[in-house]
Amino acid sequence: MDTQNFVHESSKVLEFIANYYKNIEKYPVRSQVEPGYLQKLVPDNAPDFPDPLEAILEDVRSKILPGLTHWQSPNFFAYFQSNASTAGFLGEMLCAGLNVVGFNWISSPAATELETIVMDWMGKLVNLPETFLFSGNGGGVMHGSTCEAMVCTLVAARDRFLKEHGADMITKLVVYGSDQTHFSLQKTGKIVGIPPENFHAVATSSSTFFALAPNDVRMAMEEDLASGLVPLYLCATIGTTGLGAVDPLEGLGQVARDYGVWLHVDAAYAGSACVCPEFQHYLNGVELADSISLNLHKWLLTNMECCCLWVKYPGALVDSLSTSPELLRNVASETKVVVDYKDWQIALSRRFRAIKVWVMIRMYGVNNLMDHIRSDVQLAKQFEALVKEDKRFELVVPRKFALVCFRLRPKNNEEDGSKLNRELLESVNSSGQAYMTHAMAGGTFVIRCAIGGTLTEERHIHGVWKLIQGKAELLQNCCNIIG
Amino acid sequence: MDTQNFVHESSKVLEFIANYYKNIEKYPVRSQVEPGYLQKLVPDNAPDFPDPLEAILEDVRSKILPGLTHWQSPNFFAYFQSNASTAGFLGEMLCAGLNVVGFNWISSPAATELETIVMDWMGKLVNLPETFLFSGNGGGVMHGSTCEAMVCTLVAARDRFLKEHGADMITKLVVYGSDQTHFSLQKTGKIVGIPPENFHAVATSSSTFFALAPNDVRMAMEEDLASGLVPLYLCATIGTTGLGAVDPLEGLGQVARDYGVWLHVDAAYAGSACVCPEFQHYLNGVELADSISLNLHKWLLTNMECCCLWVKYPGALVDSLSTSPELLRNVASETKVVVDYKDWQIALSRRFRAIKVWVMIRMYGVNNLMDHIRSDVQLAKQFEALVKEDKRFELVVPRKFALVCFRLRPKNNEEDGSKLNRELLESVNSSGQAYMTHAMAGGTFVIRCAIGGTLTEERHIHGVWKLIQGKAELLQNCCNIIG
Repeated sequence: MDTQNFVHESSKVLEFIANYYKNIEKYPVRSQVEPGYLQKLVPDNAPDFPDPLEAILEDVRSKILPGLTHWQSPNFFAYFQSNASTAGFLGEMLCAGLNVVGFNWISSPAATELETIVMDWMGKLVNLPETFLFSGNGGGVMHGSTCEAMVCTLVAARDRFLKEHGADMITKLVVYGSDQTHFSLQKTGKIVGIPPENFHAVATSSSTFFALAPNDVRMAMEEDLASGLVPLYLCATIGTTGLGAVDPLEGLGQVARDYGVWLHVDAAYAGSACVCPEFQHYLNGVELADSISLNLHKWLLTNMECCCLWVKYPGALVDSLSTSPELLRNVASETKVVVDYKDWQIALSRRFRAIKVWVMIRMYGVNNLMDHIRSDVQLAKQFEALVKEDKRFELVVPRKFALVCFRLRPKNNEEDGSKLNRELLESVNSSGQAYMTHAMAGGTFVIRCAIGGTLTEERHIHGVWKLIQGKAELLQNCCNIIG
Repeated sequence: MDTQNFVHESSKVLEFIANYYKNIEKYPVRSQVEPGYLQKLVPDNAPDFPDPLEAILEDVRSKILPGLTHWQSPNFFAYFQSNASTAGFLGEMLCAGLNVVGFNWISSPAATELETIVMDWMGKLVNLPETFLFSGNGGGVMHGSTCEAMVCTLVAARDRFLKEHGADMITKLVVYGSDQTHFSLQKTGKIVGIPPENFHAVATSSSTFFALAPNDVRMAMEEDLASGLVPLYLCATIGTTGLGAVDPLEGLGQVARDYGVWLHVDAAYAGSACVCPEFQHYLNGVELADSISLNLHKWLLTNMECCCLWVKYPGALVDSLSTSPELLRNVASETKVVVDYKDWQIALSRRFRAIKVWVMIRMYGVNNLMDHIRSDVQLAKQFEALVKEDKRFELVVPRKFALVCFRLRPKNNEEDGSKLNRELLESVNSSGQAYMTHAMAGGTFVIRCAIGGTLTEERHIHGVWKLIQGKAELLQNCCNIIG
């Protein structure tokens, strides 16, 4: 590794990436390749001798880019956005360049201390109660994903219970969410050894815009108790993946208290919106929760990946996840004045994610982060208005953040519109001009337009709407389904 | 995000990182800060307005660098190395720049397909049997850490058993390793819901150089069966963290077969050495295993992080970890002709790690990777020779790879030397000139010198040895413990 060569070659990659962003609108948003396309283009074995960087970058251009679905395209409206940004990229460079492994305090004190500081910054930004901050004897950690945050909190809740009631009780424990809760919750339950059938997905309906009704959760718990099961963990979501629903924390918090269950708040998507005061009311009641997580890598200009998890009782995580092998013994850990993040997560090793988030927050400043959220919400309002103006379409649920859920109305009322909307969606996606995904609202097939890409501007909103209208028209004319 | 600004600011960070590497020997290797140092240097709240990049980088220089333990220092000999490299860094830039999320095939086909291809490349490089490759109906996945690889394989083994014998049996399952197995195994068992007391750490001794003896494992299983427990999962290690021991796969594989347990091979550290044919014999017997993992981010020039996991029966992982939510339904997944990596790991989201590894392998070529391993082993041999030459010191176990385990002989034979060597180690580390860690071999406190940093050269080996000798002399003179 020689530093001149390092700068020289890295600069070539920078130019490559800059060009990629410059030309990103030229690529089909959803990749149009067929399964197995790449196998035909690359050798079956690793090369014995070095390839020049130019050849590698040319292969990225000609062989890899066509096989990518371009998450950074301004016309990417699928799933949720995955915000890249200049600051997020610079932060990733620092993380990869320093390449320290901060599993405990001594293995890189600054990595741990910066993480505790930035987690308190972020907690204050979204107005979390002091009890979730280090300054209030709670604390936060940066995980890679929501699933990891759920595994760690569920393990903590499980062990707290089993310690008192015996290991055999594991098969009696029940995890609660709604039928709109992210499927990671169900997977998490399976991973930590709770029988899959003990995942209780409480049904939601259009009457609550697909949010969890606290009374329904209460009834579900009563029912389970009556059959000898034990309510353990409840997950409430702020901004569900399918429809952007908000589960009511105050009511659910009361239920959680009444039944002694761990309440986790999954704010993966919409938590970022709470940097703006006007969205913070959605977190009312969070003081009743035990933990809350939000993904900066979705909507807050942080390249993959960073899920912030705050807990009220760090001791509960540490009780379940700590390890004190001889190999890692050191004075700082033994005096217990430091945080050893290995005891707050699944893995031992960890990247220096905090520097990325610290650079991002400082380069943009809180005011610009608020503007970023507000301008995306503004774009979503514009898209929503366009949908409303066209009588052939309808909104399926009210928009709360920057996710718009809509569908083409079926002509015939007996037809549920699923086939029609599935065809519409596929015709949009296979055009390569935009990419959206779908959700189910009750039995209704819904097209989701998730707005918030870093490069998305007003013209893209109008562009994608025109595309949708055009495809709808084609469907009408060719199939006579509507019109 | 404007591309000119992107290149301009990224270039400043490149220069910063290049300077960091240029000056890296000037920093104390193990950070010398006190707990809480950073809190005093940074504000309690996020800034409302942007800070210029120059100010941020100046803060990294003056506030963060002093708090880092410099894993990339050529004088870092602690834990195991965490190899950064130019190619690894370029790969990270591409990963962060493209910022795609390849959780299933359709979400970015190239991310999935490149991973399957590179995993087959890597598997062939370390001479794995065809049964672990996609081309032989096995397959591989890139996780973040060994712990994740263990969680996923243990969950697969657990569910395969519980499906047949009932969920209640979870409290009877036993996980086996040695007293030298990485503590992640014990943590993994706890995470997946197996009672902590069901982790059976089989004792090792100097007679096998602290490797697992197959007969001891057999006896442990018999003993557990006799008390109504069920052997489930055995972890064998190629290059243990403490002492670099190699558990014998042929014998352990036979035991695993006889008792129907899942055999996982943790080759986190020494697996990388198997790119050289002369080390591949350590994997003899791997054909009897169910899974094997190795960390490229340790010794194979891959910036954090990348743990390669291969399995013989991908279906076992998928059975436990798959989810098919409506939200992600797509034609390619339903026809089952593609790999959906979300079903091979804990989290849904995933970074494009494969591009980093692909760039690394192509930029260096297999021959240079072999040279890289061999030159580190050569340096370790030199260090070993230096230890042998000085009669005050002794090697505790034979060196197999690039880890040298030694200690200062205690003068008085009744004294076990722990206090002496602990003081020696601390005096080396607090000098800031080098950083090493320790292990226990039976009751013996051992100093570990893990050689293999990307920047470590012959002069550093001589330098650290001189440092150790000097500190030993000081201890002798001031304390009269020896000499």
